[in-house]
Amino acid sequence: MAAERDQILETIQRYVDLVGKGTADEILALYAEGATVEDPVGTDVRTTRESIREFYASIEPLEQESRLVSARVAAGEAAFQFELVTRVGDQTYTLAPIDVMTFDEDGRITTMRAFWSDADMEIS
Amino acid sequence: MAAERDQILETIQRYVDLVGKGTADEILALYAEGATVEDPVGTDVRTTRESIREFYASIEPLEQESRLVSARVAAGEAAFQFELVTRVGDQTYTLAPIDVMTFDEDGRITTMRAFWSDADMEIS
Repeated sequence: MAAERDQILETIQRYVDLVGKGTADEILALYAEGATVEDPVGTDVRTTRESIREFYASIEPLEQESRLVSARVAAGEAAFQFELVTRVGDQTYTLAPIDVMTFDEDGRITTMRAFWSDADMEIS
Repeated sequence: MAAERDQILETIQRYVDLVGKGTADEILALYAEGATVEDPVGTDVRTTRESIREFYASIEPLEQESRLVSARVAAGEAAFQFELVTRVGDQTYTLAPIDVMTFDEDGRITTMRAFWSDADMEIS
């Protein structure tokens, strides 16, 4: 059975919040066992919890702010855009990927694919 | 070989423009042979040109305006949000789906999946 729309929207909001301010372990807890992550689309798909944890651990120490821009849910799947602002010294890097996720019946993420490329990165 | 980013962005812009103001045949010309359409996600996948044409023919007579909100391209695939405003009598229906598309090497659409639900429709 597909997860409820509200449950999925809650997971998405929590995901976006945690990518900005959370720990790798907190983000990992949103993923179901056996989940996969492809970020960005076209790179190797991460299929183990270790490799997914490693991915989020790499951004954990960064000074970041995140906000959900728009989310669309359909039949237990979702696509959403969020903005991630990273400050490194005097520079600000702004990226707004569109992520596509599927979910299990408990609203945990089973697959994540992030659409973005270097061309979408704004530096100021 | 994946289509170029610029070519994909051009197809997406043309698709959004045509969904607003074009004919079913003009939209169909953007699709590769053998393309599939799932709109919204969770409904039956349209796998023939006749069924895809029928889908766009159903919105062709409507008074609509469309605009691309945001597009992200990665490795020959894309996700984008667009807004579609439909006027029926005194009422205005606004829907902003997030579509996910794959493309062939010539930038023609090979698959389209549209993320939206009735809950996203704004009526004014």
